[in-house]
Amino acid sequence: MKYTKPLLKLIEQFQRFPGVGPKSAERMAFHLINQEMSQLEEFSKAIIEAKTQIKKCSICQNLSSNDPCEICTNYERDKTTICLVSESKDLAAIDRADFKGLYHVLGGLISPIDGIGPDNLTIKELIGRLGKDDIKEIIVALDSSTEGEATTLYLHRILSPLCNRITRLGFGLSVGAELEYADELTLSRALESRTLIS
Amino acid sequence: MKYTKPLLKLIEQFQRFPGVGPKSAERMAFHLINQEMSQLEEFSKAIIEAKTQIKKCSICQNLSSNDPCEICTNYERDKTTICLVSESKDLAAIDRADFKGLYHVLGGLISPIDGIGPDNLTIKELIGRLGKDDIKEIIVALDSSTEGEATTLYLHRILSPLCNRITRLGFGLSVGAELEYADELTLSRALESRTLIS
Repeated sequence: MKYTKPLLKLIEQFQRFPGVGPKSAERMAFHLINQEMSQLEEFSKAIIEAKTQIKKCSICQNLSSNDPCEICTNYERDKTTICLVSESKDLAAIDRADFKGLYHVLGGLISPIDGIGPDNLTIKELIGRLGKDDIKEIIVALDSSTEGEATTLYLHRILSPLCNRITRLGFGLSVGAELEYADELTLSRALESRTLIS
Repeated sequence: MKYTKPLLKLIEQFQRFPGVGPKSAERMAFHLINQEMSQLEEFSKAIIEAKTQIKKCSICQNLSSNDPCEICTNYERDKTTICLVSESKDLAAIDRADFKGLYHVLGGLISPIDGIGPDNLTIKELIGRLGKDDIKEIIVALDSSTEGEATTLYLHRILSPLCNRITRLGFGLSVGAELEYADELTLSRALESRTLIS
């Protein structure tokens, strides 16, 4: 005998989440059934509300309750710089780092293994924006993975005729990192990008 | 600007789960809103069904759809041995190891720091069972943590007058473990519990 059927069903549901193994799924299911019914109803409501209320901004493709989103319609932001990110969560990370320009969410990275090519990304929408607005700089802010590198190089080739200044995030030591634990590639990039102590 | 409000709400809900930090909660929320509405409805249904259909077996206190549960009513099981576990998930683990007796789920471990004393466990219900049934052995199968040890010792003291044979799980090397990585305490216990090679 294992778990009772409704419990098994719930555990199965949690196992579908990314990064959730059988043990975590068990723990999460137990956590839920120990909640009050009112809290479970609140949880269900949050799921359905998120699904129905969240749309994509037709300009930057970011998730938002409004279209166009709060960033695209914010007059205080610098409209001459676009930062390209893969996903909304990367946008949130860059925004926490106090970037004040606009964004464009590509919706993924080029990855032939996963069947994702340039056509699956929102590159067409990006090119449309470049035609309309006066963009002076495009910052390509993608993961430093094989897919991120491939996508960065592809974007650079495609966008070069359309924008004079295309940049990428700098490489180097993480803030607070201990030298001893930094990998060789990161260290060699940190050496290349060394700056004068002022 | 961070995430849109319905998304933030959903992320908050996931952060309440045990072992789920802000990053995992984000990933889980994104996973959900990328699902079809039909899958989300299935998920909500699984939650509510689990909550409404799962009860506690009035004999062994395990989670079950029926009362008494499938284990307590199974005539093929050995009714003279009770295995004491802290939670339903521990019961499932022991059952996967092919134990054929009965169980009793204590509902936790004694932990003064968390305000859990003996009265919060289902010890009264256990003692009631000992009076009725012919129990020949009680196996105390609790975590090997401070709380597990304290609870094991407490149970041994309380149950000794009521049952002649009270045992606990053996200590030793994990199956497949490499000696090099075993901690000293485990190794010393494994030495103590060494057996003849037959």
